[in-house]
Amino acid sequence: MSAAPPPALVAEIVARALAEDLGGRGDITTQATIDAAAKAGFVIAAREGGVLAGTAAAHETFRQVDPAVRLAWRLDDGGCFAAGDVLARIDGPARAILTGERTALNFLGRLCGIATLTRRYVDAVAGTGVGIAHTRKTTPGLRALELAAVRAGGGAAHRYSLADAVLIKDNHVAVSGGVGPAVRRAKVHAGHMTRVAVEIDRLDQLGDALDAGADSVLLDNFALVDLAEAVRRTAGRATLEASGGVTLATLRTIAETGIDVISAGALTHSAASLDVGLDVA
Amino acid sequence: MSAAPPPALVAEIVARALAEDLGGRGDITTQATIDAAAKAGFVIAAREGGVLAGTAAAHETFRQVDPAVRLAWRLDDGGCFAAGDVLARIDGPARAILTGERTALNFLGRLCGIATLTRRYVDAVAGTGVGIAHTRKTTPGLRALELAAVRAGGGAAHRYSLADAVLIKDNHVAVSGGVGPAVRRAKVHAGHMTRVAVEIDRLDQLGDALDAGADSVLLDNFALVDLAEAVRRTAGRATLEASGGVTLATLRTIAETGIDVISAGALTHSAASLDVGLDVA
Amino acid sequence: MSAAPPPALVAEIVARALAEDLGGRGDITTQATIDAAAKAGFVIAAREGGVLAGTAAAHETFRQVDPAVRLAWRLDDGGCFAAGDVLARIDGPARAILTGERTALNFLGRLCGIATLTRRYVDAVAGTGVGIAHTRKTTPGLRALELAAVRAGGGAAHRYSLADAVLIKDNHVAVSGGVGPAVRRAKVHAGHMTRVAVEIDRLDQLGDALDAGADSVLLDNFALVDLAEAVRRTAGRATLEASGGVTLATLRTIAETGIDVISAGALTHSAASLDVGLDVA
Amino acid sequence: MSAAPPPALVAEIVARALAEDLGGRGDITTQATIDAAAKAGFVIAAREGGVLAGTAAAHETFRQVDPAVRLAWRLDDGGCFAAGDVLARIDGPARAILTGERTALNFLGRLCGIATLTRRYVDAVAGTGVGIAHTRKTTPGLRALELAAVRAGGGAAHRYSLADAVLIKDNHVAVSGGVGPAVRRAKVHAGHMTRVAVEIDRLDQLGDALDAGADSVLLDNFALVDLAEAVRRTAGRATLEASGGVTLATLRTIAETGIDVISAGALTHSAASLDVGLDVA
Amino acid sequence: MSAAPPPALVAEIVARALAEDLGGRGDITTQATIDAAAKAGFVIAAREGGVLAGTAAAHETFRQVDPAVRLAWRLDDGGCFAAGDVLARIDGPARAILTGERTALNFLGRLCGIATLTRRYVDAVAGTGVGIAHTRKTTPGLRALELAAVRAGGGAAHRYSLADAVLIKDNHVAVSGGVGPAVRRAKVHAGHMTRVAVEIDRLDQLGDALDAGADSVLLDNFALVDLAEAVRRTAGRATLEASGGVTLATLRTIAETGIDVISAGALTHSAASLDVGLDVA
Amino acid sequence: MSAAPPPALVAEIVARALAEDLGGRGDITTQATIDAAAKAGFVIAAREGGVLAGTAAAHETFRQVDPAVRLAWRLDDGGCFAAGDVLARIDGPARAILTGERTALNFLGRLCGIATLTRRYVDAVAGTGVGIAHTRKTTPGLRALELAAVRAGGGAAHRYSLADAVLIKDNHVAVSGGVGPAVRRAKVHAGHMTRVAVEIDRLDQLGDALDAGADSVLLDNFALVDLAEAVRRTAGRATLEASGGVTLATLRTIAETGIDVISAGALTHSAASLDVGLDVA
Repeated sequence: MSAAPPPALVAEIVARALAEDLGGRGDITTQATIDAAAKAGFVIAAREGGVLAGTAAAHETFRQVDPAVRLAWRLDDGGCFAAGDVLARIDGPARAILTGERTALNFLGRLCGIATLTRRYVDAVAGTGVGIAHTRKTTPGLRALELAAVRAGGGAAHRYSLADAVLIKDNHVAVSGGVGPAVRRAKVHAGHMTRVAVEIDRLDQLGDALDAGADSVLLDNFALVDLAEAVRRTAGRATLEASGGVTLATLRTIAETGIDVISAGALTHSAASLDVGLDVA
Repeated sequence: MSAAPPPALVAEIVARALAEDLGGRGDITTQATIDAAAKAGFVIAAREGGVLAGTAAAHETFRQVDPAVRLAWRLDDGGCFAAGDVLARIDGPARAILTGERTALNFLGRLCGIATLTRRYVDAVAGTGVGIAHTRKTTPGLRALELAAVRAGGGAAHRYSLADAVLIKDNHVAVSGGVGPAVRRAKVHAGHMTRVAVEIDRLDQLGDALDAGADSVLLDNFALVDLAEAVRRTAGRATLEASGGVTLATLRTIAETGIDVISAGALTHSAASLDVGLDVA
Repeated sequence: MSAAPPPALVAEIVARALAEDLGGRGDITTQATIDAAAKAGFVIAAREGGVLAGTAAAHETFRQVDPAVRLAWRLDDGGCFAAGDVLARIDGPARAILTGERTALNFLGRLCGIATLTRRYVDAVAGTGVGIAHTRKTTPGLRALELAAVRAGGGAAHRYSLADAVLIKDNHVAVSGGVGPAVRRAKVHAGHMTRVAVEIDRLDQLGDALDAGADSVLLDNFALVDLAEAVRRTAGRATLEASGGVTLATLRTIAETGIDVISAGALTHSAASLDVGLDVA
Repeated sequence: MSAAPPPALVAEIVARALAEDLGGRGDITTQATIDAAAKAGFVIAAREGGVLAGTAAAHETFRQVDPAVRLAWRLDDGGCFAAGDVLARIDGPARAILTGERTALNFLGRLCGIATLTRRYVDAVAGTGVGIAHTRKTTPGLRALELAAVRAGGGAAHRYSLADAVLIKDNHVAVSGGVGPAVRRAKVHAGHMTRVAVEIDRLDQLGDALDAGADSVLLDNFALVDLAEAVRRTAGRATLEASGGVTLATLRTIAETGIDVISAGALTHSAASLDVGLDVA
Repeated sequence: MSAAPPPALVAEIVARALAEDLGGRGDITTQATIDAAAKAGFVIAAREGGVLAGTAAAHETFRQVDPAVRLAWRLDDGGCFAAGDVLARIDGPARAILTGERTALNFLGRLCGIATLTRRYVDAVAGTGVGIAHTRKTTPGLRALELAAVRAGGGAAHRYSLADAVLIKDNHVAVSGGVGPAVRRAKVHAGHMTRVAVEIDRLDQLGDALDAGADSVLLDNFALVDLAEAVRRTAGRATLEASGGVTLATLRTIAETGIDVISAGALTHSAASLDVGLDVA
Repeated sequence: MSAAPPPALVAEIVARALAEDLGGRGDITTQATIDAAAKAGFVIAAREGGVLAGTAAAHETFRQVDPAVRLAWRLDDGGCFAAGDVLARIDGPARAILTGERTALNFLGRLCGIATLTRRYVDAVAGTGVGIAHTRKTTPGLRALELAAVRAGGGAAHRYSLADAVLIKDNHVAVSGGVGPAVRRAKVHAGHMTRVAVEIDRLDQLGDALDAGADSVLLDNFALVDLAEAVRRTAGRATLEASGGVTLATLRTIAETGIDVISAGALTHSAASLDVGLDVA
């Protein structure tokens, strides 16, 4: 169930984050106040409960500041923790740990927030067999990490980028002249290794989508009754995805219509940061 | 009141965001379904009210996809809008507009979310003369844009990075042996162009901070009564900043204690994305 | 039928190619022998017939050397030309044109070579409805351009990278314990927007692949009779792709077995460069 | 006889190749089907005989995917192997080896192809004392590796880039007003550490080239009789290089005219990839 | 008193320097003349006396060429040495040491030159309590290293960049309408963590600067008598910095006027390189 | 006589310099004090006389800050100016001009300093026919610009980098076993387009160098009488370069010994910055 962004990509994202925080002269506070030779032990502690994600980025942060820093994680990405739990123990040069602290916590806070919210969505549909999928509504530059956090929370994969699957959206339909022609053009262009999905916002577009051979149909902002009807009409010929206006409150009833996947931008665009801190051990 | 990240930095952040979304073969949906020569007109519309931010990044996104795209903004960063308002009109090659859509909206949604939340904080302390400042709890890689969004919302500048001011935090105090010595070492090291601030979490540390010559003292999680007492004892010798446990509900009473600045990580780490969309004009 | 790598990616590939050829002091021959103010007109001429590809990279090359260079192409990517045909007319500063010449021709020669070979494969199966697909056996760093050249030659899309579709190869099967289990694990992991393909090298593995729900089966080095039998057994339940030992001589008989797609690494790894030159107009 | 591109350059070329193949979510097939803890042993085997090149790039590929992968090469760059020979043994994490496989083989296949073709040219002129030199007709972005492969095959160095030697080509001569003036301007400009060569396509230009002090004269597409006459007239005053229309069939007779060097673009632009594969050990 | 540029920044600066010197084929002299297996021992020796700086960059240079090179420094940045002293001992692969030699020495020579000149300035004001500060007149691309060298020489920190403090210069005053308004606007904009300084070139501007609340006033090219008068009028309300026309000869008399800081562009823009060499041990 | 670094390289060097000075929030002084819409006119004026160099970098600096800035140069690189002369007129957005000022002047000051010093050396040998050549003792990261400045001053080209010519130095001779063997190995390795030079420090090594076929011999720290004797013995068989201990005072007598080239590291490593400033027009 894990999903690992390439280590070189994690390293690049971390390098940019550190460069942003260190500028040209580095952490002038730590240089001024902490002896270069001082060693210290800290823990990363959770101030609230949740699901762990982002350990690779946090780990890489300290490694880039100073390879002599040692981290020992108490659980893996995807693991649950309670308020007050220690997530990791950190030992090494005091300067490096204090210099990397904020960047590492910024990664952890944001990514644990996403994993935790995803887990709540996933739990809400437990037993229905419906997958909770992310969207491309991610923070620019952090997609690889944020989608790995969705996976850590138990979410399902969707299209990663514009380059890896066809998803014909409402604006494409509007500009290209209808659901059927758009799907047909896409099927010719895509090749046998790429899925073709189409977004519809009215039940009467479903027939065209299926007849044109769409692999998947995204039902945008459908009423519950229309979702159920779409399931009936599709009869397994395509994957059905519900999206739009999805909240924790409505999630389960949507899932019980029989659709296959629910996607929610909120997993990434509206997850609040989870509160984690660094304490002297 | 504006704050402009260097254009080259905006361009670099946008380039990474587009690379992430376009991969090696670009937007295969649009290539398959939209004619290369098609032109179209769209509007960026707000689905909810708020404060505008992120226009530079959104603009740059479309420019990088195709310089032939034309954007006309209806208001500037910092301007207010209501649900349903048109924020910008976009005209040009249909392919380029559809390809840039999600990346541009991801920037706008996140940055308007921050500006809007900041404005709410700023309005809550209106008339008190207290500034609402950001922290370094920003999304890794987006600090320049997020802090510009805080400024667009009316927020005040704080330290941008570890490199541009000294802020001695609790962990520095713990490792370096106390508030007074830490501030004194920092004053020697910092030079005459750099401020020295220190975070304290107990009133009894204030005297040491002031005696050592701190330019600013950050009062972390202080009770209201202690904030007021700190104001009295300081008597203008240093800037006083309150932080920790700040909410919209408590903001005004904190401001009324007489402190100078309130800083809140929530402005950047917990602002939900504001809902903006692209509609056929 | 076109496929356009993102312009920013083309620009980056071109920038590296020019940096490689210009070093730190640039084209010392041209600086020494050609007046800075000299203008000249040239044509890019084909020394042998073929299919055009790579115009975006060639164009970008001259643009990066000097935006004052003007190129007028006589045909588009995918167009056919004969030996001696003029492909483009170039006018502008003589220094810039001579400095960009070799890099531009290196792109054109290699990419036209690929498009031309692909066209020969495509023509060989004309009328059978079988697609000719590329593989990932591309030149490191040039995949975006090489696969666009395959598309220009009429070839079909396959997986672009390891990140955009699942293709379980022989070594995966060997390490993971069989075709069926591997496909099943992949189906769970992949999500509804990603296809799952599996490579088999014996007919008796086909049943496992189909039963496990593979979207596509790659038949590696199958005898003609086994290809035909695989088509019969599959009966449309999955896309069938033939690969391995494909030559221009054997292509049509393979296609006539009824399989859907033939993939050939030779399109990219063994296409000889097509001979194009720059002549004074 | 070896030539080593700077390790940082090899690392950069490899990083780009891996980024191209791994995208934002990495090798989804391997993540889905292979246990994270699985170890495996493989060999890189030659499917056809040839000359080894590209070991640095292949090695670096696996190192970048996971430093825990161990490679033991059976021979060095420049060494000969037969079909079926094992070139290297690879042990380590199964995921990393399968993820790096295609990129590493793409490097090896292309570079061994170049070294092998070069060796064939070199062998064809054995005993004549004539060098076989590369040209700048290399794959954009891979020049450092391709020219090292030519050296591994026994080829001689030519100009690496436009920046390191003067080579006045036909188009320079056309625009600058003749062989003599162009060589004279170049001699003034070049300085004492840079050679000046000139390309001529008619015997009657040779005198001007020599009189102007060219260090080297490139005889482009000369008939055998004219090559011999050029050797006679030059009498050691400059190095003579033959180029154009060079094939394995004509190579030896060209060499026997007494010229010093034969250069051939085919070494890099038309070498087919050599077939190498990864097998479970 | 030390100041350490972030290691990632040092590594990036060094990587660019090596790329500049190694091009695409590396050190062809060393490859041609030194056996790949040869080991050797060298020392870095000072040809003249001075103050050490730049060890991080020199160290990183050899590390990037080959991690097997071992350096043992005889003193730290900021330490003094005499002509003939050994600064470091280097052992390892002879090729790597010879390849890195010039780049490492270029760093050391330039940075020791800056540290040495700074020390001379600092010594000239010994006992006055006046700090010697750098300016932004640094070599483009090397600011982090050059300012660390100033610190190694005993110099004081000034503004690192345009982004970390406000310094209103003569041209700002000219365009914005006077010292007072400019300082007032800056105080509003800067926030409580950023100092506001203003440059004045006439004594009569001092009152405006102080009244507007400038934290620091830069007295540009003031006569000694005016400096003394400025000190008297300011009476500790702001830091006073003298700049312009500062030489070793005039330094002490300037310092004795009672100003706080003297800044001098010459520290970085006009320090001659200190002569260091690499000798066989 | 000009030498132009590739524009992309100039742009990259300038981009780094601006990034260094602008950090993440840009020029906070200018943003605070100058209206966004303000236009202004300035001149770049010389505070002392000299030779112009670095216009490309200065121009590119303002262009990157804002393409709306207009520069009109009064003379070209290589032109002479007197103290007080206007070098360029600049018009456009006041913010952009003030933001780019320091970076542009840092380039100009350093590069004019080099061109001016070079011109002094060149003038000192006027009429002797001896060239004044640079060395590789340049500022890390700025070699392309610094060597162009040497050319602007009338200096001659030497080896640009380790990759473009063979120069066997004293340490190579020591490790490889003597002048003769080292030159012979290099001649085999280098190929016909690369010169082979060798440094000697005693007259008795000259015969070995010449017999082995060195194209050029660098006479390091030779007495005048030995230089003259080396000229006599060489009799035109190789280019002779004098180096070491070269000063303006000794230059002409060295030149008059009959050697061909004098190289001097001082041109780049010890040129003081030339004083240029930006004044309101």
